[in-house]
Amino acid sequence: MENNLLKLRQLMNEHRIDAYIVGTHDPHNTEYLSDYYKSREWITGFTGSQGIAIITQKDAFLWTDGRYFIQAEKQMRDRGFKLMKIGIPGYPDYKEWLVNNLDDYSVLGIWGAVFPYKEWIDIKNSLIDKNIIIKDDKDLIGILWDERPLLPQGKVFVLDVEYSGRSVEDKLLDIRKSMVAKKAEFLLVTTLDDVAWLYNIRGTDLPQSLSIFSYALITDESAYLYIDKSKIDDITISGLSKSGVEIRRYYSIFDDLIKIKNSSIWCDLNSLTLKMFNSIDDSNNYINEILPTTMFKAIKNEVEIAQQKKAYYEDGLAIVRTHHWLKSELVKGNTITEIDVENKLEEYRNMNSCYLGKSFDTISAYGPNAAMMHYRALEDDHSVIERKGFHLMDCGAQFPFGTTDTTRAIVVGDLTQEQKVAYTLALKGNINLSRAKFLKGTTGHSLDILARYYLWQNGIDYKSGTGHGIGFAMNVHEGPHRISPIPNSISMVPGMIVSNEPGVYITGDFGIRLENILVVEDFVSNEHGTFYKFDTLSYLPFEPEAILPELLSSDEIKWLNDYNAKVYDLYEKALSDEEKDWLAKATETI
Amino acid sequence: MENNLLKLRQLMNEHRIDAYIVGTHDPHNTEYLSDYYKSREWITGFTGSQGIAIITQKDAFLWTDGRYFIQAEKQMRDRGFKLMKIGIPGYPDYKEWLVNNLDDYSVLGIWGAVFPYKEWIDIKNSLIDKNIIIKDDKDLIGILWDERPLLPQGKVFVLDVEYSGRSVEDKLLDIRKSMVAKKAEFLLVTTLDDVAWLYNIRGTDLPQSLSIFSYALITDESAYLYIDKSKIDDITISGLSKSGVEIRRYYSIFDDLIKIKNSSIWCDLNSLTLKMFNSIDDSNNYINEILPTTMFKAIKNEVEIAQQKKAYYEDGLAIVRTHHWLKSELVKGNTITEIDVENKLEEYRNMNSCYLGKSFDTISAYGPNAAMMHYRALEDDHSVIERKGFHLMDCGAQFPFGTTDTTRAIVVGDLTQEQKVAYTLALKGNINLSRAKFLKGTTGHSLDILARYYLWQNGIDYKSGTGHGIGFAMNVHEGPHRISPIPNSISMVPGMIVSNEPGVYITGDFGIRLENILVVEDFVSNEHGTFYKFDTLSYLPFEPEAILPELLSSDEIKWLNDYNAKVYDLYEKALSDEEKDWLAKATETI
Repeated sequence: MENNLLKLRQLMNEHRIDAYIVGTHDPHNTEYLSDYYKSREWITGFTGSQGIAIITQKDAFLWTDGRYFIQAEKQMRDRGFKLMKIGIPGYPDYKEWLVNNLDDYSVLGIWGAVFPYKEWIDIKNSLIDKNIIIKDDKDLIGILWDERPLLPQGKVFVLDVEYSGRSVEDKLLDIRKSMVAKKAEFLLVTTLDDVAWLYNIRGTDLPQSLSIFSYALITDESAYLYIDKSKIDDITISGLSKSGVEIRRYYSIFDDLIKIKNSSIWCDLNSLTLKMFNSIDDSNNYINEILPTTMFKAIKNEVEIAQQKKAYYEDGLAIVRTHHWLKSELVKGNTITEIDVENKLEEYRNMNSCYLGKSFDTISAYGPNAAMMHYRALEDDHSVIERKGFHLMDCGAQFPFGTTDTTRAIVVGDLTQEQKVAYTLALKGNINLSRAKFLKGTTGHSLDILARYYLWQNGIDYKSGTGHGIGFAMNVHEGPHRISPIPNSISMVPGMIVSNEPGVYITGDFGIRLENILVVEDFVSNEHGTFYKFDTLSYLPFEPEAILPELLSSDEIKWLNDYNAKVYDLYEKALSDEEKDWLAKATETI
Repeated sequence: MENNLLKLRQLMNEHRIDAYIVGTHDPHNTEYLSDYYKSREWITGFTGSQGIAIITQKDAFLWTDGRYFIQAEKQMRDRGFKLMKIGIPGYPDYKEWLVNNLDDYSVLGIWGAVFPYKEWIDIKNSLIDKNIIIKDDKDLIGILWDERPLLPQGKVFVLDVEYSGRSVEDKLLDIRKSMVAKKAEFLLVTTLDDVAWLYNIRGTDLPQSLSIFSYALITDESAYLYIDKSKIDDITISGLSKSGVEIRRYYSIFDDLIKIKNSSIWCDLNSLTLKMFNSIDDSNNYINEILPTTMFKAIKNEVEIAQQKKAYYEDGLAIVRTHHWLKSELVKGNTITEIDVENKLEEYRNMNSCYLGKSFDTISAYGPNAAMMHYRALEDDHSVIERKGFHLMDCGAQFPFGTTDTTRAIVVGDLTQEQKVAYTLALKGNINLSRAKFLKGTTGHSLDILARYYLWQNGIDYKSGTGHGIGFAMNVHEGPHRISPIPNSISMVPGMIVSNEPGVYITGDFGIRLENILVVEDFVSNEHGTFYKFDTLSYLPFEPEAILPELLSSDEIKWLNDYNAKVYDLYEKALSDEEKDWLAKATETI
């Protein structure tokens, strides 16, 4: 296994590179990478979703965060890499390490086609006194990687206006209005979800997010879609053409960009690769603000919201059935593993012909495993579900009419008092946020504390944000808004969809996460201002067995009973009698 | 009255100034100005605490905000000034006005000795294309103002370590440690409260904030206090000298600054005047961060907190007596005005020999007047208190052992259901914030929503922050922390004192503000992190008559009954039987 590292060091010698950096990136700032881009995984053996490796002739390090310390150590055994624990005192961050360990005039190698421009600027600034030379076109892993997977050869499909709610023409009108307001002559779109939203297309290059590798470039008259032509059929091409969209070869974005001079280009420097940045001539000026596609995409139209409700119904039904199946199997005394639950969920989902696949890898985590926020049950490493405590299931689906993401801690046997307190406090936080009304201008940062309030009253916190945006038949994590203790200047406005997922994680013991999905809507306008509220999209039981009513206020009890009644009403007709009886109990009035 | 404006225009001609700006400033970025610095008031007639005037040969404008529109129009009658309403569509802001109305190469006059450096930079940048000439040493009002008040000739007094809790030597040690950490060779302190805190002195130049005009300059070896020597006695000078502090003439700060070259100077550019900024040689570099004096000052030590409790007790007693007096006078059928209440409060306060004066002008506001957040009853313009609705009193006192600030809406007769709902919702917000526990790192910005939550549920908002810091025997408004919807990056840490003042303001109808004062203290540290909570410093009744118990949770009712019981226990012994009977009723269990 260390062989790869040896070969890389040899290659670094040939290319006269003293230190080589391999991160977790693709050309589109995508969250979940296609196999082709898993270079860091290939060289380190570590499969986690976050990490950066630095290799010199003497050293080889991987930096990753607390979610992955155990997994990384295990997976990197015999790979020659040492783990650098992000956030743990005594470990320098990777830029610090470079500053302290690179000699003056060292040569640093990166692959600029995927390396983020912003990251590169930070590195450059950190090393400014060292006169480092950066070679930025070095895909050394690509040279060594014999059986490298191909780039995905997915296909495009179209979301008609009855699904998308707004035509490409109308979207282009909106975008061009924004461009005029910002005095932008060009709009450069490099993130896959923005391109997909703009042109009402989806694809199968990255099936979990229905993405297709592509770029867009917009002027006041033209709109280009850069894509491998083998991925798009003639009917789609001609449909787009009628909407004023011209198809160009995927890689020709670079040639086209180079030709633009003395113009103002709207682009998001936070998501550009170094190569893309370098393709923009210095004579241009940047409008470096959140893209209008990102803002418009986040604000769902009525058609999208109505369909999302359907998506939550369809996926909720499969999940409710899985809960019932799990519980009845356990009652029968059968041995059920975390993997069995995942598989059963897929079985129920696949009964629906519209189901397109998972929107992310299901987290099926029993007992102490659920205390690891990003746990994943593996074929060769998973747990059997016992008849006590909670089983946690965090899962999401893709439909042509929406994207889902929900979590429940499911009661699989006796609960301790501590577990009931924890569940009830997380539920109180969930209700507090769900019921919130808020003044126009309020950010998700301001709302975050509402979900934590009751946990904090008891000295409990969860080390994650409270909520993320969710795409429409698209990315399960979508910006620019979020509900988080990390400051964020984006106001929540009607049409924004956001998750509400407070939790309790007790290491080595149990994990609880109660995730509903909300959409912002109008509440009231008066002399005090304009106020918004949330509507709930997702319906899954909050089980009375896990709840201590004495910790709830009468308002909270009313909210809970109303919610659980809706859960029952929603799925009742589609369930068998046995399932129905179980659901009635799981949604009983308290 | 327009005569002054004529004279100013003549003088502008002589000085070849096309436009002259008069703001609301002194050399120390002080919130409440000494009379000597009320130049804007002298030329416009407008007495409000915020405003900026621009005079040309043709025009004369005053910009101020919504609090003051009516007052400004009234006071500026026959002065030749037109009102520019800040925040109202159709009115340009004053920089916009300058950009749109000044000709190229115009000459702009300001008085740099008081004009804020930051404001000047903004003006300069706005006008960059116009090649404007700025004459920055023009105190034109000073030339015209015949009967200009003298600069205050207050006296310094010392806060011994038994009051301040920390010696000057120890404070200098802390400050120098911070300077080493930031690699600062000089620390320049121009804000009066920072100087006063650092040297454990107070003064009577600005009696409401116990400030004395002064500057400080600190190096690793020296500590200078710049002050008019007539204000400080020999014992104080020798005491300070023993602590390593050297006294220098007030104005010599400028001569001393000019001598500093090639050094790093820690100063707060947000509070420097243009003149002060210009006194710093270009060869120096700035460390422009919150001053260590400001951070240390905000975190009260145990001695300060213990004394603040005493201050709130002493002032609370006078306020409770005033409440009782007001109510009993009304019952007797006597005519009582807002001014009478103010005077009675002072009468009760003056029974305490430690009382040094108000910490700000009392707001005594009946009925609809209380809907104006910054109302002030004037001798020739105030209301009689009727036997219905609320009378609002927002007041504060100075003692050598602390500074107070509290508000209650007092029930003076029958209440409408709307008034009771409003009072109860504001109270719920107050309780929600008071009871909050929060993770280390939480800012006042994050806490703000807790005080608004229940009001927002009912479509009500108040157009102010929720809380401000409060000085110790010092400014009633103190940073750097605040509880506000405006983002703020300062974390709340143990020792910080902050107000909690949600309210309801219905224009033309009534105003409610319920202001308590809190201090941050430790709660618990565990595997989830370190948590803080609040202790309450101020005790005044929340009157059961104004509260709808059916809107309160059982936790809130418990909090309220405990709080009101403490109010009674606290003052009982010091009250007459009649007062005691009334207080028992005003703090009755619900």
